[in-house]
Amino acid sequence: MLDFIFKPNSIAVIGASEDEKKIGHVVFRNLVKQGFEGKVYPVNPKREEILGIKCYPSVKDLPEKIDLAIIVIPAKGVPSVIKDCASAGVKGLIVITAGFREIGGEGIKLEQEIVELVKKYGIRMVGPNCLGVINTINKMNATFASELPPCGRVSFFSQSGALGVALIDWAIENNFGFGKFVSLGNKADLNETDFLEYFGEDPETDIILGYIEDIKDGKRFLEVAKKVSKIKPVIIIKAGTTEAGAKAASSHTGAFAGFDRAFSEAFKKAGIIRVNSIKELFETAEIFKLNKIPKGDRLLVITNAGGPGIIAADTADKLGIKLDPMSEESIEAIIDKLPPTASLYNPIDIIGDATSERYKVVLEQAIKDRYVDGICVILTPQAVTDVENVATEIVRISQNTEKPVFACFIGGKKVSSAIKILKSQQIPCYSDPSVAISSYKKLIDFSIIKNKKEPEIPKIEISLENKEKVRLILEILENAGVSSVGEENATEILSLYGFNFPKKALAKTPEEAVEIAEKIGYPVVLKVSSPNILHKTDVGGVKLNLKNAEEVYNAFVDITINVKRFMPNAYIKGVMVYEMITGGKEVILGVSYDTTFGHMLMFGLGGIYVEVLKDVSFRIAPLTKEEAYEMVEEIKGAKILEGVRGEPPYDKENIVDKILRLSQLVTDFPIIKEIDINPYVVKHQGGVALDARMIIGKL
Amino acid sequence: MLDFIFKPNSIAVIGASEDEKKIGHVVFRNLVKQGFEGKVYPVNPKREEILGIKCYPSVKDLPEKIDLAIIVIPAKGVPSVIKDCASAGVKGLIVITAGFREIGGEGIKLEQEIVELVKKYGIRMVGPNCLGVINTINKMNATFASELPPCGRVSFFSQSGALGVALIDWAIENNFGFGKFVSLGNKADLNETDFLEYFGEDPETDIILGYIEDIKDGKRFLEVAKKVSKIKPVIIIKAGTTEAGAKAASSHTGAFAGFDRAFSEAFKKAGIIRVNSIKELFETAEIFKLNKIPKGDRLLVITNAGGPGIIAADTADKLGIKLDPMSEESIEAIIDKLPPTASLYNPIDIIGDATSERYKVVLEQAIKDRYVDGICVILTPQAVTDVENVATEIVRISQNTEKPVFACFIGGKKVSSAIKILKSQQIPCYSDPSVAISSYKKLIDFSIIKNKKEPEIPKIEISLENKEKVRLILEILENAGVSSVGEENATEILSLYGFNFPKKALAKTPEEAVEIAEKIGYPVVLKVSSPNILHKTDVGGVKLNLKNAEEVYNAFVDITINVKRFMPNAYIKGVMVYEMITGGKEVILGVSYDTTFGHMLMFGLGGIYVEVLKDVSFRIAPLTKEEAYEMVEEIKGAKILEGVRGEPPYDKENIVDKILRLSQLVTDFPIIKEIDINPYVVKHQGGVALDARMIIGKL
Repeated sequence: MLDFIFKPNSIAVIGASEDEKKIGHVVFRNLVKQGFEGKVYPVNPKREEILGIKCYPSVKDLPEKIDLAIIVIPAKGVPSVIKDCASAGVKGLIVITAGFREIGGEGIKLEQEIVELVKKYGIRMVGPNCLGVINTINKMNATFASELPPCGRVSFFSQSGALGVALIDWAIENNFGFGKFVSLGNKADLNETDFLEYFGEDPETDIILGYIEDIKDGKRFLEVAKKVSKIKPVIIIKAGTTEAGAKAASSHTGAFAGFDRAFSEAFKKAGIIRVNSIKELFETAEIFKLNKIPKGDRLLVITNAGGPGIIAADTADKLGIKLDPMSEESIEAIIDKLPPTASLYNPIDIIGDATSERYKVVLEQAIKDRYVDGICVILTPQAVTDVENVATEIVRISQNTEKPVFACFIGGKKVSSAIKILKSQQIPCYSDPSVAISSYKKLIDFSIIKNKKEPEIPKIEISLENKEKVRLILEILENAGVSSVGEENATEILSLYGFNFPKKALAKTPEEAVEIAEKIGYPVVLKVSSPNILHKTDVGGVKLNLKNAEEVYNAFVDITINVKRFMPNAYIKGVMVYEMITGGKEVILGVSYDTTFGHMLMFGLGGIYVEVLKDVSFRIAPLTKEEAYEMVEEIKGAKILEGVRGEPPYDKENIVDKILRLSQLVTDFPIIKEIDINPYVVKHQGGVALDARMIIGKL
Repeated sequence: MLDFIFKPNSIAVIGASEDEKKIGHVVFRNLVKQGFEGKVYPVNPKREEILGIKCYPSVKDLPEKIDLAIIVIPAKGVPSVIKDCASAGVKGLIVITAGFREIGGEGIKLEQEIVELVKKYGIRMVGPNCLGVINTINKMNATFASELPPCGRVSFFSQSGALGVALIDWAIENNFGFGKFVSLGNKADLNETDFLEYFGEDPETDIILGYIEDIKDGKRFLEVAKKVSKIKPVIIIKAGTTEAGAKAASSHTGAFAGFDRAFSEAFKKAGIIRVNSIKELFETAEIFKLNKIPKGDRLLVITNAGGPGIIAADTADKLGIKLDPMSEESIEAIIDKLPPTASLYNPIDIIGDATSERYKVVLEQAIKDRYVDGICVILTPQAVTDVENVATEIVRISQNTEKPVFACFIGGKKVSSAIKILKSQQIPCYSDPSVAISSYKKLIDFSIIKNKKEPEIPKIEISLENKEKVRLILEILENAGVSSVGEENATEILSLYGFNFPKKALAKTPEEAVEIAEKIGYPVVLKVSSPNILHKTDVGGVKLNLKNAEEVYNAFVDITINVKRFMPNAYIKGVMVYEMITGGKEVILGVSYDTTFGHMLMFGLGGIYVEVLKDVSFRIAPLTKEEAYEMVEEIKGAKILEGVRGEPPYDKENIVDKILRLSQLVTDFPIIKEIDINPYVVKHQGGVALDARMIIGKL
């Protein structure tokens, strides 16, 4: 718990200053003058008092043990001050000072030094290079932003301090209530995950917002986010999603921006609601202020203007929100109370001359209707529209229902006081129907996140003996300094984890080849086996589709003759006899490694589907069975596996099983960084891997 | 020219009323009290005077000829009033009255009646069922919206009157200047195309906005829009884009909402900037107020906050806007004037403690830099930021450059007066970097539209003789009442327009079959020819891949024996000998018919690409050569035609030629509504159609 940061009893401002232009002054003044009720001590060896408060030369000289120290002195002095804090028993630090990792070179070293110090002393640190921390509830403005935003139940962590300043200013103007705010700075100690966890447990926080550019510890972030997102909406804007953005990000904070696909998958896995712009962040937060979760995806739209109703319907349709009409009984019940020109489907158009009475009639029916899970009330200020009464009606109805009711009032002066009525009662109100509906979609998404059963990671049974064999192979390869694992060893490892490969055996003589072929079953493929021959086809070392004993016998003879002719000095181990795989559909199964989130499984259809159409799906390991299914289902060409043009379907279960086996393999042996099984041939029943390679390495 | 509607010298309000609750009162009062300088006459047989102005029993009794009459009497009385207007020499009508097509039944008849009347008398009519017309320049508020919006150079046509009312209210609150506004109503006479044309020619209009749900005359709209969009930005929101939206649209105005794909293609062809929400409509209009067009797609972003800079970069990257750094000389010139922690690439991050001086340094360099086509200035209000000075600096710089300079000021109170400074000088200012960059993208789009050369429709040479033959075939089919044209006739028509089909000839004897095969060249395919046999393969009537005379001879004999055995009563014309097509890539060429815009060409890769992946492209006929190329290039699988896995490329020129021939065919013979050539086999050189069908019908 980080209460000593957000709810300290006492704070020391180390570097407090009398000079109004200095951050050390602003931070101290903000704490003293904006209503914070705890004790605040200025620390500055050169001053007797600041703002009339007695000043201390060092944190060690303070008359009591303090919870939180805010450091605003130049970077070089920070390490020794941290030591002082340790001996004074400080629990939390906010290092506002810049000049650390973000400036490179010496700054990186200095940051390492202070990290080691806080670890050593068991102090937790925000920053360095940050704006500070705000808690509107105890009126603690421990930042150099000039004012506290209005009090509310939305808490926010931001990797951009400057953005934080701007948004606090925006919040004041727009009366948007914040609870707690933290500027993450360089995240040298405390990072997004710590605050996500704290806000998740914080009874004063209902909605969690975040702006991040990278994630420090992907695995822990995922774990924490998964838990928190079941309880509270977590809405995050991850910037640096594209190459250009990531470049800007790394020149900005030196943060290494992860591969965006991994972030998308991670956010999905963790139940995080991802948004793409600052506007969307707050528009989304707005809908969650309702604190109501729809039971389903059926939305009723009520409007007094056709056009905005159509725009709402368009948006709903694009997002997969169902605009079902109300039940027949409901329509029956309201039909006489609306003019004949009203449209009774969905959107319900109560026509431009509607007063609040018509809104009321429909709303009262809608909250009773079993086909309605949520209600969007659109209003345009027409001549007779009693706008404020409509707002009051919405507030009243909303108090009588569990269903989310939200509004879209389009206009200016004529709707402004009504919007105030709505917002004062936490009824979300938008000015654009598309935005209203898009925001509502996030509420539906959250209801799905909340209701999702705890996903279970299936345990694939691999015998201890097989595991031990894999461990041994990997150990040998690692010791040999091999990072690129070729077909033979990769095949061996994957076979031990339950993958099928074509049956094969080495023949030394033509007779032996025939014997093996008879065992495997025709047709077979013969390939010369020699460590010296890379391009077997070029030297006549491969024969395909051999259908009987005679063909096999002759092929063996041909191959040995060919090879001896072309490469007289090659060492020939023999000739490999392979089962020939016919039919089936080529797919690709793979694993890649993301520096933030670790192993990611990949699936795609083979050949041009991957090469040209880039039609692949990803999931972060370890996978649940549902996720493995989703991977198979979500590619665009998924239908092809169901069998097109009269073919029977291919064995999706087999693909799912193999994806889970790969997930298990990299979980058991994280040293395997990449796997590429290309192609894997899935049959109508079962499947066979035709080629495989791996990359292993230190993590 | 519709000046008699927007700039009338005199107006009669037919149905003017003394009752303040009546629309007839509001409209009359708006005209009299809001500054309109022309003469306004109330017409009402029951009144002596209204608002102290002498009232006339009929428009025929007015003391002068008037330009414009506004009708606000009940629907039934409208036809006879129109007759009065005709005899009084009225040029334009605004029928505000509702109760026409939108109520169905009698309303439809009544609307037909008034349309016939205005056509007969040569009067032009807005509406019926509309809000009216506004011109802020002559202060004419001929609507029942209560106030005039601020004056400006943006004109707007809206198919939703209620939306118009809301947006006027919004415009007043947000000081957004409108020029002319028209509520289209039922578009019984004048429609979107008429106002698009008028606004296009109007010297008082710089930017044209539109909200539409359908388009009355697609062909004329395209023609007019193509011309206007070369001169002024035309920004349109087309609602009813999805199934749900279209349903809402048709229950609302009875408008038949066209197939959305056709609208997208039509807007693209016409150079219209399409937006999807009301917010986007105005955000987009904002950037065009600059009246500057970027010379290229390289944008420089200047920011005092890293986070918003990254978001801007992300958005730019997604939209294909280039964030190139400035030239080395430029960076050289400014490097000493910025702190060492500043980032000099793009975005240029001048760091949180930047004052207007740093903005000035970068801006002055940027307008000189040859790698910069446009400039986005991002600001967050930090402690030392002199926000208003930055705004003033932007205004000054903008006046000294042809390059578009726009701003994104994030915050509330601290940035509001600076935003006013910017907006008063027509500098676009946004509050969200994503929105700023997305809006700017539209400006780049417009520069491309503006600079596009007048597209030429290529004239494919088809001999008069061939055309005449096609005409004859179609006439015979039409007279026979045939709408579905089968392979034989479709093949004939397409051959006359330059399509290749496999060579073929009918053989009556095995010897004849061999003779034909020798002429065509091996391999060949034999198929029984009989009007009675639909499924030729089922009765053993097809033999593929016949490689020599003997195989052809035997195949002929086999086929005749098979068919006689299975269908002894079938009439056998003989056996068709076809050239066998091997190799090549299967594609689909097609034509479909959209009720709004007419013929649309379609192209896609064959088989599962179309069936499963829906990877197809469309263009509205007639096509330019560039459009035909775009069709081939824009499908996701386009690379496949370039030859993957070492194949040589397929003949794209041949596909382009065939698409243009189809475009020519349906232009010459619009009675052909649909064509489906599936598959068309494109080779490394040339191509062959393997199957074709058509639908013909009255347009």
